[in-house]
Parts: sequence; structure tokens; C-alpha cells
Amino acid sequence: MARELKQQSLTIPILLGRFKTCRMQTEKICAPLQVEDYVPQPIAEVSPPKWHLAHSTWFFEQFLLIPFSGSYAVYDEDFAFLFNSYYNNAGDRVLRPNRGLMSRPPVSEVMAYRKYVTDAVLALLENGDASKEILEILELGINHEQQHQELLVYDIKYILGNQPTFPKYGDDFTTKAETKEAGWVEVTEGIKQIGFSGDEFSYDNELGRHRVFLEPYSISKILVTNQEYMEFIASGGYKDFNLWHSDGWDYISKNEIKAPLYWHKVKGEWQNYTFNGLQAINPDLPVQHVSFYEAFAFAEWKGMRLPTEFEWEVAADQFSWGQLWEWTASAYLPYPGFKKAPGALGEYNGKFMVNQQVLRGASVATAKDHSRKTYRNFFAPPSQWIFSGIRLAQSL
Amino acid sequence: MARELKQQSLTIPILLGRFKTCRMQTEKICAPLQVEDYVPQPIAEVSPPKWHLAHSTWFFEQFLLIPFSGSYAVYDEDFAFLFNSYYNNAGDRVLRPNRGLMSRPPVSEVMAYRKYVTDAVLALLENGDASKEILEILELGINHEQQHQELLVYDIKYILGNQPTFPKYGDDFTTKAETKEAGWVEVTEGIKQIGFSGDEFSYDNELGRHRVFLEPYSISKILVTNQEYMEFIASGGYKDFNLWHSDGWDYISKNEIKAPLYWHKVKGEWQNYTFNGLQAINPDLPVQHVSFYEAFAFAEWKGMRLPTEFEWEVAADQFSWGQLWEWTASAYLPYPGFKKAPGALGEYNGKFMVNQQVLRGASVATAKDHSRKTYRNFFAPPSQWIFSGIRLAQSL
Amino acid sequence: MARELKQQSLTIPILLGRFKTCRMQTEKICAPLQVEDYVPQPIAEVSPPKWHLAHSTWFFEQFLLIPFSGSYAVYDEDFAFLFNSYYNNAGDRVLRPNRGLMSRPPVSEVMAYRKYVTDAVLALLENGDASKEILEILELGINHEQQHQELLVYDIKYILGNQPTFPKYGDDFTTKAETKEAGWVEVTEGIKQIGFSGDEFSYDNELGRHRVFLEPYSISKILVTNQEYMEFIASGGYKDFNLWHSDGWDYISKNEIKAPLYWHKVKGEWQNYTFNGLQAINPDLPVQHVSFYEAFAFAEWKGMRLPTEFEWEVAADQFSWGQLWEWTASAYLPYPGFKKAPGALGEYNGKFMVNQQVLRGASVATAKDHSRKTYRNFFAPPSQWIFSGIRLAQSL
Amino acid sequence: MARELKQQSLTIPILLGRFKTCRMQTEKICAPLQVEDYVPQPIAEVSPPKWHLAHSTWFFEQFLLIPFSGSYAVYDEDFAFLFNSYYNNAGDRVLRPNRGLMSRPPVSEVMAYRKYVTDAVLALLENGDASKEILEILELGINHEQQHQELLVYDIKYILGNQPTFPKYGDDFTTKAETKEAGWVEVTEGIKQIGFSGDEFSYDNELGRHRVFLEPYSISKILVTNQEYMEFIASGGYKDFNLWHSDGWDYISKNEIKAPLYWHKVKGEWQNYTFNGLQAINPDLPVQHVSFYEAFAFAEWKGMRLPTEFEWEVAADQFSWGQLWEWTASAYLPYPGFKKAPGALGEYNGKFMVNQQVLRGASVATAKDHSRKTYRNFFAPPSQWIFSGIRLAQSL
Repeated sequence: MARELKQQSLTIPILLGRFKTCRMQTEKICAPLQVEDYVPQPIAEVSPPKWHLAHSTWFFEQFLLIPFSGSYAVYDEDFAFLFNSYYNNAGDRVLRPNRGLMSRPPVSEVMAYRKYVTDAVLALLENGDASKEILEILELGINHEQQHQELLVYDIKYILGNQPTFPKYGDDFTTKAETKEAGWVEVTEGIKQIGFSGDEFSYDNELGRHRVFLEPYSISKILVTNQEYMEFIASGGYKDFNLWHSDGWDYISKNEIKAPLYWHKVKGEWQNYTFNGLQAINPDLPVQHVSFYEAFAFAEWKGMRLPTEFEWEVAADQFSWGQLWEWTASAYLPYPGFKKAPGALGEYNGKFMVNQQVLRGASVATAKDHSRKTYRNFFAPPSQWIFSGIRLAQSL
Repeated sequence: MARELKQQSLTIPILLGRFKTCRMQTEKICAPLQVEDYVPQPIAEVSPPKWHLAHSTWFFEQFLLIPFSGSYAVYDEDFAFLFNSYYNNAGDRVLRPNRGLMSRPPVSEVMAYRKYVTDAVLALLENGDASKEILEILELGINHEQQHQELLVYDIKYILGNQPTFPKYGDDFTTKAETKEAGWVEVTEGIKQIGFSGDEFSYDNELGRHRVFLEPYSISKILVTNQEYMEFIASGGYKDFNLWHSDGWDYISKNEIKAPLYWHKVKGEWQNYTFNGLQAINPDLPVQHVSFYEAFAFAEWKGMRLPTEFEWEVAADQFSWGQLWEWTASAYLPYPGFKKAPGALGEYNGKFMVNQQVLRGASVATAKDHSRKTYRNFFAPPSQWIFSGIRLAQSL
Repeated sequence: MARELKQQSLTIPILLGRFKTCRMQTEKICAPLQVEDYVPQPIAEVSPPKWHLAHSTWFFEQFLLIPFSGSYAVYDEDFAFLFNSYYNNAGDRVLRPNRGLMSRPPVSEVMAYRKYVTDAVLALLENGDASKEILEILELGINHEQQHQELLVYDIKYILGNQPTFPKYGDDFTTKAETKEAGWVEVTEGIKQIGFSGDEFSYDNELGRHRVFLEPYSISKILVTNQEYMEFIASGGYKDFNLWHSDGWDYISKNEIKAPLYWHKVKGEWQNYTFNGLQAINPDLPVQHVSFYEAFAFAEWKGMRLPTEFEWEVAADQFSWGQLWEWTASAYLPYPGFKKAPGALGEYNGKFMVNQQVLRGASVATAKDHSRKTYRNFFAPPSQWIFSGIRLAQSL
Repeated sequence: MARELKQQSLTIPILLGRFKTCRMQTEKICAPLQVEDYVPQPIAEVSPPKWHLAHSTWFFEQFLLIPFSGSYAVYDEDFAFLFNSYYNNAGDRVLRPNRGLMSRPPVSEVMAYRKYVTDAVLALLENGDASKEILEILELGINHEQQHQELLVYDIKYILGNQPTFPKYGDDFTTKAETKEAGWVEVTEGIKQIGFSGDEFSYDNELGRHRVFLEPYSISKILVTNQEYMEFIASGGYKDFNLWHSDGWDYISKNEIKAPLYWHKVKGEWQNYTFNGLQAINPDLPVQHVSFYEAFAFAEWKGMRLPTEFEWEVAADQFSWGQLWEWTASAYLPYPGFKKAPGALGEYNGKFMVNQQVLRGASVATAKDHSRKTYRNFFAPPSQWIFSGIRLAQSL
């Protein structure tokens, strides 16, 4: 939690309310699943739902209850090994590609673990007296679990969408056609303020408010649609290496990628897997499940480009955002003055600042109180299984 | 089913009795499992229990009910794709390494599918009138499911034995110390009859009764024990390349294999995972979970060798066998006159006759009426997860 | 060659002089080699010297002689396939990892090809009358060959340095201890001009002179030495995951990297392969052959950071640089307004602008007239075989 | 050299003559090469010609000169490391896939090494007085080098045949149409003697003369021709999984193998690379460069089978053989009573007796005095780059 200790703006009752809501929401996301769906890990990036449920719980146990609750009894000593993700400082862990081998503990026990830890957190805070450090870790834990809620949605979609039977999940987490008119926001050159300031929660990677000089540019008010993307495909976009990064071209060639994830050509027509099953592509929806490579190639084909994360942040009040995360032209790098915190919580962000691309905005899978215009999301350039889309920009 | 049509020696009532027993036994093997345990496929060789349950059912549907039962309605058209194993002639199939991704259909539905097919088979035969072909396929289906029962036991052990928590399964399928005295059976040179003859069931690979000339040899009356194997390890057996095949040495080096599967060195003592959890090695039990490479190296270290499958078969009446399959020195090759049957059932055995090693005998996981001394089992040389052991031989 | 047509500042005689010098220099670099040394490609990144010799020649043939010399007869039609590197627009090509398989054409024929093309270029220009476009391509071709000269030095060192016998190359391309005093250049905040302007040659990636706002910082006047780097190793720098990027930690773990490339621990002492053979580490030399991951981890260990490429460029007149390329904290991204040129020459830079890190400066292997402070070099973060070093920076 | 010491039948002068002939022949095979051709290792199985030249020399140095020549000075201490192949007992060695990285020592020095060792061997024996052990090792060394001569021819063909320019080698080592009439040799059932007996040289793997019982069979007098093989391809042989082993089908699918090695479909016509360059397929030649998988599938398609190695040996006097090695149905296993010799020479054969298939006969690349009907050659089932062909058999 590499950030300055700030005036804690949230009262204990408000935080506890958010904590309870958060814990329930995680379980609500899993409600449509069969027990069996909690287990598989089809690719290394996709964790079993069971793992998310336990890991987000372990985080509270490891960083809040064990250090700060004198009376807390660890639920099961093995769980730290089983459900640590990448916190090397917090001890050994099951390697990421092996999470799908763990059928034990069963879902029912993971749920019992969740309840046990939730109750212990509530007990810790119920006397209404907690240090600033405890509240900050609680807030971080909530935000951490909200991030896993979003991954949970991605991973559930991947697991169900790769069943040969394309089972339905339900109506949640689906997008709608944008209702705003197309058009461009123009921004003049100048020094701009970038990064988070304020007393509310933020991650260490968005702190370090600083100045950036931007040359003049315009940025689209709406996202690229399936209709436009189908035109890109139809015009041979996946066959023209001039549009692609060298790495991107190698990647789509090796993996035979010819469309966004979940798209299937069925009897000559494009269909895609949605949470309501396999359906014809809706041309009016924003294109979803594209990698950075695809977003870049599409922009090249249009003779435009992706915005930098700074251009996005400066203009963000002038368009609507939030159905899909938006790939930017910016690599994920530290802001001036960024410092990792000591210990396990310092592993949160900084160590990923290479070979990753920044996305800005939010998605239909983002927790309601988990978005702000300074938020820096990031994924590896080939990632398709995330809820990603494309907004275009141009230099003026 | 590449064998001559024979005088069917079994009556319908007897076959139906065996059918019902077989179907129940498969489910009994799974009884100790949690729902989650049915899903993972930790390595390509190990199939999810759910898959075995459905595949052995699909076999009856595909080869018995669809061709011979006029009134049969297929349970679910997708299941042929989902639960075909390697029968290319029977249509497309989920590739073997992807079985662990299939969380759907859930276990409950697989169980419903089992009941549906079991009932349809019983209905087909209940009027007491069935062609010889139907009875032969029924008998093959029972034997096929019995083979999968054994794999099910192997695969359950692998799934549970790779949980970091080493959960218990129960008392079934465990071995005992051999009570027979050590010693050697001596066999004189001569022409010997090899292969199956008789009216009972057998596989195509053991038919073609033929003559083989054997030079004189002796074969041990008992299996190699854990005690002897620990001596092999302690004397540096895994570090002396002179004892190993070149492929075997490469394999154990690359995979850092230093003991049989499930053996763990805990505080300087060898323990192993058993169906009753992690336990100290019992020195009196026959060594189990060794690959062909390990069996060969152990024999080299002893200055002896493994028997050929012919030597084994000729002497089999003179020692007791059946706790563990026994690696032989024989590659898995066709007997003289072997011919694959046309169609999908012809894929049963012949196409595996390269790069495989023969095992003879039976194991504690073998169905009661599924063993005979002519039975030819086979696995790839590196296989450790099977219930395999070592019997030594010597040329005289 | 994605740049504006500019007033050609160089006269034909001057350009021809540089052309001849450049062509000779390439061959001079190879002079110490045995014929056999021209052939191997030990890793995908390292091309055979023979390939560099031919590819830099093919560039003149493909982009200058074929389009602009009416009388030119192609030397060998197969060579375009053999010696194209990554210009997809210029037709099929031998895939990069297969260059080491090409024993043909032999070195002698490659040398004949070089002479043939050199003579044809001289003939094209000897009447003293050439269009601006011809001169620009000639200048680009010279710069292109100079880049390959540097790669040639890297690749020769890799080929020789991986011979079990550590053969000597000679005294060229070795570094010296820095004579400048240690210390820090301090730079105040403000808007800075970045990028190339002027009439001389530059690459498209450094054009688009633009403004960047920098927060105050200081930058070291000298490079990190072997002495300091040995202290980093001795203090456990390669064992402390807190110092590393997640990708970097995975990379050094998987590849068991414990020191810069060419370092060998011989009887407890660090030695390294140099162009004069295996020698004890000279503690006063700047550390060389470190990856971006290592440079970053070293800076973390020091409690400092690498400079951004902008910080480097702004301060570059206040320290000496040029023995080793210096890793910066900047990912390789387009400057505002960057546009790829159409056609094959547009593939020169833009398509690599993902997953690469910028290096600034120059090295002892850089051609004399091939460096300037706006020059943007780039390599993948794990690269060790390049002539790379470390300069530290700090935020003020 | 795991064989009984036998009455040495060869006199020193005869052996020395063979030694000199052998050493010259190796160099003659390389005469058409360019220096560059000695270096590449395009696949792990194919060693650089330079390596064969040195390794066959090292064998005499290591096993003959060092133990038995008191005055012998090792040519270069590094060479044991560089040119050991797989003799773990003889110390460390360059790993096989890295042989192509060794540009040093250059060819000229390898040739000097050859001359040095050849002279030393001649000096050792010139006084006409040598122990039986020395003579046996000399004879083994000659046979060892002859084996490498054959591999040298295979590897040269692979290196040249994978140059995009298909260079010519010359007229040696090419096959001719068989002149014998087609037909079948019929063999009656009975006990047959198998294996080598006599005083001449043989390998340990063919010793242990023993009895085998054969059921009646017939074996073709001639090899399968290109004409027949083209019919197999045209009839869809590579698309019908019923014809293939499961491993074979996986292998040709994964590697997209659709014809023998060196076959190229050029404008609808089959051509193949020969030592005289790319040429139209000659339909009358025996088909060459097929794997065991392909030989098996072809036999299946014909409704026949491959002979076992015993069937081949028993009938070998009744047909002509020697243009191509012939795949048999036999896995490479030890004969009864086979024992590895102690030490490095014991690694010669025994450790390969798993996952390999026996070939019988000889090829146009086999040294003149290096063939006999008991000779057991062996390669892995997928091998195509060897000089292999197909002879059919049938059970009667």
C-alpha cells in the first residue's frame, strides 16, 4: 500500500457497510455457477472461481486479521500456501498454472472460510475503535476484492465460453449500444495535471500528481462498434501485416487469431458467445474482447491512433466511459516519484511495470465504487479475455 | 472387436448380472469423492473422473444402443463429441488434454446419463432375445468399463495425491505384504504356446495362439519390495547413468525424478501418499508406481533383468500375481496373424502397438473377473501413475 | 524512411566517401574470423556474420539499385529470399531462427555479392547527378549498414564467447575505465524540447520535435562500474525478488541468470569473456552486458532509478557518453505525430513500438558518425548480448 | 564392446589396411563440401560434418591411444569435451543440440587432428606387435567410423537438401531401379537360428545366437517403389487415420507430413531433392526417406505388414538387399543373454533398447565391408532422414 497516510475520510460504519456489500457481491457473481464450474483453469491467466473466492479472503486474513487481531485463530494453516497469489514476501504458494488442479478444499469449505473471515473482520471493528492503519488495510482489502470481482467475471465467461455447449450465465455484465452522438473532443496543447489527488482511496500507481505537456489532439466521444470492426475484418485487416506491430503479427499468426475472442463464424455469419449464450453479433454494440494488438491494428487501418493515457485522462470529463476498459497507447510505467512500499503490499503494482499496456476507464464488470478517471488498469498486450474496447484519437 | 465370433458361452441373465454389477462398481469407486474432485485433469494422461463415468456410458450408447435398439433416443447429441475418447471413426471429439476444462455437464447430469443408458441397455435385453453380435458388444462394453474402472482408481489417486493437503480416500485398493516365500521358478528351453484360446472373452491383442521358442530362464516367485527399492535409491541408483536406458536417463534428469511417484522425503525419511493419506513407507510392501525405466534400472542394478511377456505367461501358474501389474521386457507388438477389425472397434488395440511396453498380471484395482494370464496390458515407458511393480528374471 | 524530405545537406562526393568507408568497415570487423565463424546462429537474436554481410548489401540492391538503376542486373534472384530480414513488404524470406542453417552461399560468394553491389552503387552515382530521393536512400542504406555493423560486433562476441575454447578476437571494441569524476547533474523542472531537428540524417522515430514537461531530477555523471555490480551480486541482488520486475524475476529464475552475460565464476573468482579471451573482471570498467531487468534491479538496490529517455536527452550535454548504450526507464513508444512511411521502409521502426525498452547514447561498437543525443535505440528487456550499461538517476 | 574375446581372425596388416581405407573414405565423403557446410546442425538428429570428422577421431584417441600408447600426447585437452557424443562414462560433453554452435576448432584444425591421430595409431601398430585387446578396439573403431560415415551421408543430404538453393553434391550414394523380378519368398514354420556366430567382427547387439520359432510367412523379393508410394499418397493414405499408429497419426498431423522427406510438390508434380539437385520423382526407384510410421501405414494400406527382423534374417539369402535399410515390425530389444560390457564401450548399444525400431539390410551409404544379414540397425520411429525403404511381408 505504497501511499501516503492520509486523513481517513471514511467512517467505520461506512467502511463496514462497503465491506459487507463487497463480500456479498463476490458471492452473488458466483450464484449462477454449478459447483463444477468453480474448478477449472483453462489457461494460466484464468483462475478458478474457487480460487478468487478464497484468495480475496486470504488477503484479509493475512494482512488484517493476523497482524491486528490478537484473538484471531487462523482458519487453516494450509490456506496461505493454497491461496496466496503472487506475494513472494508472504511465503510459498501454489504456482499459478496449477490452481486448476486443486479440487480441495471443496467450494463448501471455501464458503465457510469466507464466512469465518468476514465475521472475524466485523468482530475486529465492531467496537468502533480502529487505528488509521487498520482502516486503510480494510479499504485496500475491499478494493482488492473488487478487482478480483472483475477478474471473476472475466474468468467465468472464459470457462463457460469454452464449454462446447455454450451455457448461459444470465443478464448481468452485458453491454448496450452507446446512445451518445459520435464526434470528437478537441484538446489544446499545454501543461496538464495528471494523477490522483484527494483523500479518497487510490492505488499507489496513480499517485504522484504531476505535470505533463500535451501537444494538441482530438479524441472520439464514442467507442468503436462491432459494425466497424466487422468491416475491418472484411477488408482483410487480419491479413495485412502493415497494420500490426511485429510482435502482434507474430502472435496472431502463431495463435491463428482472426477475430475478437468468443467470435465464431457459423455458416458464414459471425456469432459470439455472450453471457446469454451463442448469439449473432450485434453490430451496434462496442467491440469487446480485443487485445492491444488488435486495437492498435484497427486504429492503423482507420489512419488514426489510440490515445495516450494522459490524453485520455485530460479529456475524460467530456465523453462517457465505463462499459469497457479502453486500451491506450501508453506502456505501464511509474509516475515521477513513484516508490514501492516495503513488504508484501509493495508488490501490488510496481513489479508489473514492464511489458504491460495501460487501459483506462471501467467496464460493466467493475464494482460500482471502484472507478475514477485517474485509475490505471494494465494488462499484457495479447490479452483478449478482459472486457476491453477501443477509443480512437488523432493528433491535430 | 477384432476376434472370431465364438460360441457365446454366457447366457443373457449372467451377462446382465455382470452388467449391473459393473455399472454399480464404477459409481462405488467414485463414492468417496467430492463433486470438485470429478473435474481436474492434472496431466494429459489423467482424465477427470467425470469423463470416465460418461465415456464408459457413451460406449454402450454408441456401439450398442444406437445400432441395435430401434426405439432408443440419444440422451444428448453433444455427448458423443464430449465423451468420445480416441475413436476417430466415431466422429469429432474433445482433445484429450482439454478434458479438464469441461465443467459441464455437471456430475449430476452425468449420473442421470448413466442411469438413462443403463436402463436402455436393460430394456434392450429384457425380453431375453438377443443376437450373438449384441451379446458380444455388451460383453466388450463391460470389459471396456472395467478397464476404465482401473484407470479411474489411478486417476483418483493422482488427483488426490497432488492436492497439497493429501486427502484420504479410504481402505480400498491398497496392497499387502506378500506372504509367499522368495525363490525362483526355473523353466527349461522349448517351444511354448502363447496367447488366448477358449470361448470366454478376450481382447484381439491376446488372440492368435502361436508358438514361441524360449531359452532356459528363471523367474522370481515374489515382487521387489519397498525395502529393496530403498536400497537401490540409497546406493545411488538414480545417479548412475550406466543403469538406465538413454531415454530413461534423459527422462528422469529432465523431470527430476528421484523416487517412485508419491514418494516424498520428509525430514530425511521416505514417506508416500497412499489412499489413507501420507504415511511412512512400509518396507514389506511390493514397490509400486515405478516406470518401466525405473523397473529396468533396478533390474540392471541387481545384475538381473525383467522377464519377457512370454516368459511371464509360461511360468504364471507357478507364482502368485495380482496386486500390481508387472513391467516386462517386451515391447507391445502384434502377435502373428493379428488383424485389426474394421470400424471404430478396430481402434481398440492395434494402433497403440509402437513405443509401448507390455505389463502382465493384474492389480488391486483390476475388476475381479477381468484378469487372466494371457492378458496384455501396455503403457508408455515413463508411466508412473499406474499400479505397477517389478518381478525379476534371469537367463540360465 | 518515414521522414520529411529535407534539404540534402551532404554532397555526392561526401556521401560516396562515407559509403566506401562504411562498406570497408563492415568487412574489417569480420577480418579476425575463421570462415566457420560466419555460419552459426546460436540463439534466434544472434544472426550469422555471413547474413549481416549479405543483408546489408541486399538493402542497397533492393531499395536503391532495382528501383533507380535502369541497367542493373540482379546478382542472384534467390538472394532476396535469403537475405531479407523482416521486410514483409519486400517478399518472402528465410525465417529468422533458420538463418544458421544456410551454409550456402559460401562466404566467398557473399563477398563477391558485396563487391558487385558496391560497384553498381558507385556506378549509379559516379556521373555526379542523382535525385534527392536517391541520395536519401543511399544515406539510409549507409546508416542501416552501420546499425548492422554494431549488431555484427555483438553477434561475433556471442558466437566466439560461446565456444568452449573462448577464442580471442583482438583489441577492438573494448571499453576503458571512465576518467571523469563521479557526481550528479541536476536539472530543474520545466518544458523541454525533445527529438531531432536539423537537416542531417535521422531516423523517423526521433523526429517530431515536441515538448515534454519534466519534474526536477538529477542524473549521474558516470556509469555503474563492475565493482559496484559485484557488490550488488555479493549482497544477494539476484536472490531478492523485491528488487525485480515480476517478468524479470521469472526470466532470471527460468534461465538461471546470476550475473551479466559472459561472466563465469572460476574457482570462486568472477571472470568474463572479452574480445581478448577469458579474463579476470576489471572492477573499474563500466558494467556491460546487463539486461534491462538487471539494470532496473540494480537501481532499486541502490534506492535510485534509471533515467527516462527524456531526462537523458535533456542532460546529455553535461556528461560524457558513448562506451555503452544506457538502458532508460522509457518504453519504446512513438513520439507525437509519428507516422510510418508507406511500403517496406515504413517497417523500419514503427512496428517494434511495443514490449521494447529505449536505450540512449552509443557504444564502442557504434560507427563513428552514427551517434547523436536524440538517437533512440531499443531492445527487448531481457537482452544481455548487446553493449549495454547503467546510468542512475534520482527524482529531486 | 560387449562381446566375448574371440580368436582374432584379422592380421595386423589387414586391419591397418582397413584402417587407412576407412580414414580416407570419411574425408572423401566430405570432399564436395564447402567449408561452411561443415558447421550447421539444422535439427538435433543431424550433426555437423565437422563433428563427425572429429568424433570418429576422438574415439581412437580416447579408447585406443590414451589407454594403450604410452608415448601418446593428447592433441588438445578440450577435444574430449567437444567431441564426445554420448559416452557419459567418458566425461562431460557438449550437449547434442549445441554442436552446431561450435565454429571452432575450424575444419582445417579438425583435419590436422585427424592426421595426428591416424599417424599415432599407425605408429602404435607398426612394430607388428599388438595385444588382442588393441586389435579388437581398433576393429571396433573402424566399424564405429564406418557407422559415422553413413550418418555423415545422411546429414550432408539433410544440410544441403534444406538450403533454399538445393545445391548438388554429386553422383555418389544414389539408388537405382531394382532389376530383380517381383515375387514372394515363402518360408515354412519352424525353429530358426538367429544372431551372429563366427570369428569376424560383430556388434554386441547381434550376438547371443539363439532359437526363434516362426509361423509360416512370405516376404517380398523387391522393395516398394516410388510409383506404388505415389499411389498410396494419391489414394489419401496420409488422410486416413485407420492406417496409422496413434503415435504416427499424431506425429504426421503435428508436423504436417504429407510425403517422404525431400519430396516437394512443384506445380502439381512431385519432385524430390537428390544429391543431383531437385528432380522429378523417378517412379521406378525404391521409395526412400520414409519413417517407420509411414512404412507401417503403407503396409496397412496394402493389406499386408512389415516383416519381423527374424523373418527378414531367415529369408535374407533369398532376395537382394542393400540399397536402403528396411524397416521391420520389430522393436529394438536385447537378444536372450545380452549383457552390456562395463565402462564406456558398454554404452554402445544396450542403452538404446527402448522406443526404437529395428531396420535390417544396408544402404548405398553403408561402408562396403560393414554389412551382414545379422546386422541390427535401429532408429526412432519418426526418422525420415535416414536411407530407409519398405519391404512387405504376409502371414501364410
